[in-house]
Amino acid sequence: MASTKTPSGMRDFLPEEKRLREFLKTVIREEYRKAGFNEIETSQIENLKNLTQSDGGENTKLIFKILKRGEKLKIDQAKTEDDLADLGLRFDLTLPLSRFYSNNKNDLPQVFKALQMGYVFRAERAQKGRYRTFMQCDIDTIGEASNVAEIEILSCIYRTLKRLGLKGLTFKINDRRLLKKIVLSAGFSEDEFSDVAISLDKIDKIGEEGVYAELCKKEYAEEKIKALIDTNNKIKENGLEYAKDIDEESYENISTIINVLSSLHSEINLVFDHSLVRGMGYYTGSIFEVYYEGSKSALGGGGRYDKMIEKMCGIDQPACGFSIGYERLIDIIKEEKIALPESKSLAYFYSSDDDIKEVMKNADALRNDFDAVSTMLKKKKFGKQVNRLKDEGFTHFCDILNGEIKELD
Amino acid sequence: MASTKTPSGMRDFLPEEKRLREFLKTVIREEYRKAGFNEIETSQIENLKNLTQSDGGENTKLIFKILKRGEKLKIDQAKTEDDLADLGLRFDLTLPLSRFYSNNKNDLPQVFKALQMGYVFRAERAQKGRYRTFMQCDIDTIGEASNVAEIEILSCIYRTLKRLGLKGLTFKINDRRLLKKIVLSAGFSEDEFSDVAISLDKIDKIGEEGVYAELCKKEYAEEKIKALIDTNNKIKENGLEYAKDIDEESYENISTIINVLSSLHSEINLVFDHSLVRGMGYYTGSIFEVYYEGSKSALGGGGRYDKMIEKMCGIDQPACGFSIGYERLIDIIKEEKIALPESKSLAYFYSSDDDIKEVMKNADALRNDFDAVSTMLKKKKFGKQVNRLKDEGFTHFCDILNGEIKELD
Repeated sequence: MASTKTPSGMRDFLPEEKRLREFLKTVIREEYRKAGFNEIETSQIENLKNLTQSDGGENTKLIFKILKRGEKLKIDQAKTEDDLADLGLRFDLTLPLSRFYSNNKNDLPQVFKALQMGYVFRAERAQKGRYRTFMQCDIDTIGEASNVAEIEILSCIYRTLKRLGLKGLTFKINDRRLLKKIVLSAGFSEDEFSDVAISLDKIDKIGEEGVYAELCKKEYAEEKIKALIDTNNKIKENGLEYAKDIDEESYENISTIINVLSSLHSEINLVFDHSLVRGMGYYTGSIFEVYYEGSKSALGGGGRYDKMIEKMCGIDQPACGFSIGYERLIDIIKEEKIALPESKSLAYFYSSDDDIKEVMKNADALRNDFDAVSTMLKKKKFGKQVNRLKDEGFTHFCDILNGEIKELD
Repeated sequence: MASTKTPSGMRDFLPEEKRLREFLKTVIREEYRKAGFNEIETSQIENLKNLTQSDGGENTKLIFKILKRGEKLKIDQAKTEDDLADLGLRFDLTLPLSRFYSNNKNDLPQVFKALQMGYVFRAERAQKGRYRTFMQCDIDTIGEASNVAEIEILSCIYRTLKRLGLKGLTFKINDRRLLKKIVLSAGFSEDEFSDVAISLDKIDKIGEEGVYAELCKKEYAEEKIKALIDTNNKIKENGLEYAKDIDEESYENISTIINVLSSLHSEINLVFDHSLVRGMGYYTGSIFEVYYEGSKSALGGGGRYDKMIEKMCGIDQPACGFSIGYERLIDIIKEEKIALPESKSLAYFYSSDDDIKEVMKNADALRNDFDAVSTMLKKKKFGKQVNRLKDEGFTHFCDILNGEIKELD
């Protein structure tokens, strides 16, 4: 007999969970759409080269690759994975969006505001709460160089999460240009930037000493490390004002975004965090993350990636986006017991003596008043059958015998 | 530079097409749900063995296989595809449903009415209008042995297609038990049944002579072929009444279904078609297809598959389902120009002198009255900019200068 389990890290969803998932997608879609983002859909399968040759960082190591088919597959002669596979499952929605934009730019407005909800796939070691396929909900603005793009995107994300009833949200913001200046001014080279940034990113978790130790281990000169930690401490003490002297563009960018968003949303908690890095190599300016109260892992994040489209099709187009971690959001909404809209669902009981035509006609008529009507053959233990209905998602039942509609409590 | 095209047979969807796709999914979901079917979701990725060892017929030859990862992949030692791949993309929704049911049966009602909408993948030779991934919309009833299941499913499909404005639909119905009796009574053996049925299936296209020639070519005895064609002609002449003598169970089943559905839907066109075969090996009783006026390929189909769950988990459970070909339906709806619900979308113009806080606040306020509001920087050629709006999906625009909302015509 075949295995009935899903493959490792993959999931099925039962009716109750599926209803929650669809509800959440509807809310997110409505709010994103309200803010002027237009929904598109991109292929889940990409040419493998597009994925492996991207700036996707660690994700390029986690690609599910698809075996070549027919004559293209030459098992005898294959030496590497590239000889065997030609397609792959996407690991994010940003790369497909860039490809989509490059391919369709003539049919899209000059400033294109895209909304995408779809599955991505990563062959990570499966763990409790970590899946190998998960949904992402992205908005991206392509063709807007000013930080109006950042402001609109963050405002839209805030409104969406607020509508879902999430409280205690913190938005963190930084700028990759500032981060780069900090690292370079400490004496590191351009080439060393990414590697140093990866260590700096951990300062929240392992502290100043931890970062110091890690950079020493990576054999960087002690004076550079000291200078970096020194600047870090000064920014920590003096905040954004200190960053002004290091990179004025970043200072102007971050303070405008904070300033405008605070005036739009009086309760928004938006803070400059100079230690925010974001993993992907493609970010070029603003970067942001949003945290739910008490949680150490981000609920979503994004930033500006002005060079990705150019790399894809040779046309220089600025771009900025944000991605909500949908699976994390589902978990929070379950914990908070946020209510789904009511759905009236009726079980319509008949017995084997009844004329099936009449049963079907009656059920059809009742469908005008209920979201769902299901016909059901009455069993000998009718009481037990009725007792199970609520667990099965029904709110009402009716016995054809007397036609009375009763609410389940 | 990387290729910006989707891989062969895969697709992206632009905003207008995506809106149509989501609208269609919403209508189908609502109608299926109304009839008492509960939406579930199954994994797009299956263990490869589940797919290859199934009764999926030709589809098992069209599986996109996923390369093993890490230490499991031993390229040097690999001799067959099974050595290289451990997972695969599903080719239909029926097999995942059976696996889902087997895995979750303790948490599901005794009669489980499932609704599924999702992508399936088939590595067919890509052609115009034929894709390698496409959406299917399925309903299935598990645990109902009587043809109440068939009646509910066909009634629900009819209601859904009618609501979408489709006219001139023909439902064809047959029974695999009758088909088998016809073939066996002509002298063919059990083992020959599937192969003979495949030829018989073509009678609509290649005619009696064509079927005759094909079966001769397959080297079956002429007397058997003649007997088969003879029975075929008698059923064609005398209709369902003649089938009564061949298999009474099938006769009772088909006539009840036609009878009840005709009384429920006065305009339904439901006909017995003894030459309907359906490809999949797993069907055991009723089989059906629906055709749109003038079209030679089915818009959807299904049937009873009482043995599949037992094969999967050892528990005998009757099952019956129907699948709508969503991509074909999209094509028809586009041809028929069936209208989408109206969506009010506003372009809100500002100039670079304006305070961005005010712009954002005004836009937010307007979001109460519109489905979508998008802020836009005014360009020198404002007239041209406005002229493009309609093509970009806007219905209204407003200039911050005078605050007047104008409808685009």
